[in-house]
Amino acid sequence: MRLYSMPSSGNSYKLRLLLAFLGREVEMVDVEAGSAALASAKAEGRLPFGKAPVLELPDGRLLPESNAILCWLGEGTRFVPADPLEQAEMLGWMFWEQNSHEGVIAVRAALRCYPHRRAEATPDRMAALLEAGHGLLAIMERRLAGRDWLVGAGPSLADICLYAYTHSAGSRGGFEMERFPHVRDWLDRVAALPGYKGLHD
Amino acid sequence: MRLYSMPSSGNSYKLRLLLAFLGREVEMVDVEAGSAALASAKAEGRLPFGKAPVLELPDGRLLPESNAILCWLGEGTRFVPADPLEQAEMLGWMFWEQNSHEGVIAVRAALRCYPHRRAEATPDRMAALLEAGHGLLAIMERRLAGRDWLVGAGPSLADICLYAYTHSAGSRGGFEMERFPHVRDWLDRVAALPGYKGLHD
Repeated sequence: MRLYSMPSSGNSYKLRLLLAFLGREVEMVDVEAGSAALASAKAEGRLPFGKAPVLELPDGRLLPESNAILCWLGEGTRFVPADPLEQAEMLGWMFWEQNSHEGVIAVRAALRCYPHRRAEATPDRMAALLEAGHGLLAIMERRLAGRDWLVGAGPSLADICLYAYTHSAGSRGGFEMERFPHVRDWLDRVAALPGYKGLHD
Repeated sequence: MRLYSMPSSGNSYKLRLLLAFLGREVEMVDVEAGSAALASAKAEGRLPFGKAPVLELPDGRLLPESNAILCWLGEGTRFVPADPLEQAEMLGWMFWEQNSHEGVIAVRAALRCYPHRRAEATPDRMAALLEAGHGLLAIMERRLAGRDWLVGAGPSLADICLYAYTHSAGSRGGFEMERFPHVRDWLDRVAALPGYKGLHD
């Protein structure tokens, strides 16, 4: 198996983090934003939706979408709850991460950190993203009040998925994380799991 | 079971469509945009992420996110392929629908059709959404060339999910559907399945 992975991207980091927790290794092909490797992977048809990450299976089949790859690699492991309703709840957080969280939390970080996106970072847009992001973090804060993990009794794919962009929401996104103590405790809890690796480890 | 469903929304329509194909009925609570019913459902804490659809289970537990509800209702039916890799591919299309397709195809339709959103519909934005949407439809067109369904040999949750906003991409979104004959044939194929219901049926 071969993982086309963008080193700086939270969506790719999710998969490296799950693999680290599982003690599994796969061949990594780094396709950083703007790199020749990314252009080649696109030109060779390795990225069906035009973006990383993508998992290439031994028979050459290509599986795109970070959260679908999480499900594929996580199937049958301790990171997928046995209870069908908890599985559905886990998927609910993962779909929410893709349609609500990422488009605000990750996008504000990108506008602050990537020079080629600075022109989009108008004061109005940054203020709107800040307010929207605090609303999203408040949803996580309410959920994590009185519970250790987003779904069920232990860490699941939902925690790994949402950790990826939330752990740098303060440093890269400029969100006021001190307002969300339960989220911060949860971030520490994920980082204390055996096998943990940081974004750049 | 009770489904909080927004009549005009593709995300809610997905669930009504799956239920129709399965010949199942659940109690419907209509929470149209701007309605008192929507405000009540929010105030009563029935919409964990602040939006519809949400499935309320008999024991009162709440399951948000349209595609997670599709998975929950579809589990064990003919709309989930038996092969694990095909399941992962199905989820891949469903995550793509939420993070790429909906934010362009459904958003352009909303900007054209909802009077309260007209101010956002600047010529630059509408042109950018048109171009982006044609790129997304081209991804579906390539996939559907030479195959009847997005994943595997029969219709799956991926087809139901992507049908919801694609079937009105021309009429509501203003996209040039004549450029995508395989997508149009696939739309006809979904609409010919036994039990089919339209958005407003």
